[in-house]
Amino acid sequence: MLKEISGGVCAAQGFKAAGIHCGVKASSSPDKNDLALILSDKECTAAATYTLNRVKAAPIYVTMDHLENGVAWGVVANSGNANACCPMSHENAEAMCVAAAQATGHEPEDFVVASTGVIGQTINISAIQAGMPQVAAALNGDGSDAAANAIMTTDTVKKEIAVSFTVGGKEVKMGAIAKGSGMIHPNMGTMLAFITTDCAITHEMLSEALHEVVGRTFNRVTVDGDTSTNDTCVVLANAMAGNGLIEWKDESYEAFKEALEYVCRYLSRAIAGDGEGASKLVTCKVSGARSEESAERLSKAVVGSALVKAAMFGSDANWGRVLCAMGYSKAPFRPEHVDVSFQSCAGEILVCKQGDGLIFDEDKAKEILSQKEVIIAVDLHEGDESAECWGCDLTYDYVKINGDYRT
Amino acid sequence: MLKEISGGVCAAQGFKAAGIHCGVKASSSPDKNDLALILSDKECTAAATYTLNRVKAAPIYVTMDHLENGVAWGVVANSGNANACCPMSHENAEAMCVAAAQATGHEPEDFVVASTGVIGQTINISAIQAGMPQVAAALNGDGSDAAANAIMTTDTVKKEIAVSFTVGGKEVKMGAIAKGSGMIHPNMGTMLAFITTDCAITHEMLSEALHEVVGRTFNRVTVDGDTSTNDTCVVLANAMAGNGLIEWKDESYEAFKEALEYVCRYLSRAIAGDGEGASKLVTCKVSGARSEESAERLSKAVVGSALVKAAMFGSDANWGRVLCAMGYSKAPFRPEHVDVSFQSCAGEILVCKQGDGLIFDEDKAKEILSQKEVIIAVDLHEGDESAECWGCDLTYDYVKINGDYRT
Repeated sequence: MLKEISGGVCAAQGFKAAGIHCGVKASSSPDKNDLALILSDKECTAAATYTLNRVKAAPIYVTMDHLENGVAWGVVANSGNANACCPMSHENAEAMCVAAAQATGHEPEDFVVASTGVIGQTINISAIQAGMPQVAAALNGDGSDAAANAIMTTDTVKKEIAVSFTVGGKEVKMGAIAKGSGMIHPNMGTMLAFITTDCAITHEMLSEALHEVVGRTFNRVTVDGDTSTNDTCVVLANAMAGNGLIEWKDESYEAFKEALEYVCRYLSRAIAGDGEGASKLVTCKVSGARSEESAERLSKAVVGSALVKAAMFGSDANWGRVLCAMGYSKAPFRPEHVDVSFQSCAGEILVCKQGDGLIFDEDKAKEILSQKEVIIAVDLHEGDESAECWGCDLTYDYVKINGDYRT
Repeated sequence: MLKEISGGVCAAQGFKAAGIHCGVKASSSPDKNDLALILSDKECTAAATYTLNRVKAAPIYVTMDHLENGVAWGVVANSGNANACCPMSHENAEAMCVAAAQATGHEPEDFVVASTGVIGQTINISAIQAGMPQVAAALNGDGSDAAANAIMTTDTVKKEIAVSFTVGGKEVKMGAIAKGSGMIHPNMGTMLAFITTDCAITHEMLSEALHEVVGRTFNRVTVDGDTSTNDTCVVLANAMAGNGLIEWKDESYEAFKEALEYVCRYLSRAIAGDGEGASKLVTCKVSGARSEESAERLSKAVVGSALVKAAMFGSDANWGRVLCAMGYSKAPFRPEHVDVSFQSCAGEILVCKQGDGLIFDEDKAKEILSQKEVIIAVDLHEGDESAECWGCDLTYDYVKINGDYRT
């Protein structure tokens, strides 16, 4: 039985975390955490997915290198600077791991490193080096909140979750923190997400579960269509739950994957709903498709359309834009079979049947679309496959936030 | 010698045009034209490109049908309704041609038909039928302005141009009107653009020139990434200039293509600069590429990025977003070779050299980016090919216009 628990990234046995303000973010924000550390009491099996953007931030290359042996002890991460596209970025990413290792008695290669923030400015590595002993000293079992705060940029709420589930009769826990908000259109990678678990699982199974789940969760989120240079999703498993080692795709693997998908799906929706400037979470569910891939492509085109997003901001039932976005998605479907309805806690309204517009109650539609979570439901009437993607509305605040992000 | 002249779509010999308000647009806008007619005194060779959106508006199918023989006499078009995704849309598109034919003494098949406006609502065909005798009676050699106005939706300025050039010692003229503004991300088609010329040219050569030119002009514009259901670009050539028929790719063909590219490029830039809510025209020039295709793909990703567009609105020299957009464009390049600079009438500033950020004068950068036309210049240092694409900034007004477009 999977259930939500508290504790975030420290919920699983043997994980501690901490977050502090060290000075990467402007001194005008002394209350904003900008340096996070996560550490396990035992060596962890580790798997990760990264952005497919050709321009990758230095911490990604360093993490790829450090995870080549499939194991890690912890994560060091900062917000306020992406450590990308600037001189010394590779050296500075390595220096973060060296500092974390010195402060905790480990090796630099034991750390995953990640950065998020502005691209192209040299990171204040001295501030990170100076702050590292402090964040290491602060490591504790209640530190998930502080760590989650330390990886936020334009996020307005921290993204944190933990679950408990059973593997072979043993209780296993999994926790995670993530950040999202802008430059969100993950492509086989994700934003920053750090997942910890005390499950015993091989590197091969852990990596396979992560890739499958990320494809169905983080990669189905879009905020602005911009795939970041820094996307990283890492899962650390320290085996302290004492379950029988998961080494093939049995029932235990399925239980683990289910928990991982629950956690990643929660974080994905949280990231979409907290997209830069967003006032609502917009889900597009495409059903009746011939393939899950088609359904995903159609759904992602709809939640990614600037015109659909602006209509959702205005609570305007402009379903023509939904069909238009589907039409340019490059997925096959027959427009003349498509039904479209809008759904939320305020009800449901069918606005398009078999590709043609219906006359509908505009007031009712506006009420449905004025809620915090709205669903655009599309039925293709062509098969049994389905998929849903998550996004948010396009608001004045998105323009405001991004019109002058650096200065 | 190619030179700009006045007269728009009526500049070429034998073309008349007119535009009126017939009532497709709300009665609250009696001064807004919504029905346009263009007619040639002689039969024209005709070629067209259309949207590749899988959801195509009915007028596109009707026009494809009517142009199957490669000839046409005129164009009938309305704004205020896209005549897409609603019952009777095909019949209504045909009815527009029938009405135009009756009012002018031609056959319905002699007309190209196009619509632009809201998707999914049944068009007021009675208003069009009632207005057709009036617009036909108004046809005249000074009617280009009225016709250009009659195809505008959220456009704030009319798009119109004419040029004169020489083919085999004869003066040939070409004119055009277009509309664009939102749902602009042409894909092998374009927005609405009607081009007339008195050049004598075969259908094969006309079609080939149009496809090549559209690929390098309209298809390099993006306003919001949404490829419309109604994009249509048509060129009508009535041979009245008396030049020797262009029937192969000789010097005359090149002169014709040069004029066509001049006209389409002008309209493309006008459409980008008048994008919904836009405060400035943003051009991205990518040079030093190994192929024109790569350069185009990179350039289009940059002008299409919501984050780049928002930064341009804020006159913020956030070049990291430029590299990020290039990185997810799927075109090959080496980030460590890339130089980025910003240019406008206020000067030029280099902000990134060989993939790393430079320290630059922020005030100077802001001044450069505060102009009405700004250029993002990218040098890949990998080859001799280049391409430029056009877009606009993302503003509060874009969100406002599209938050409640229908009602």
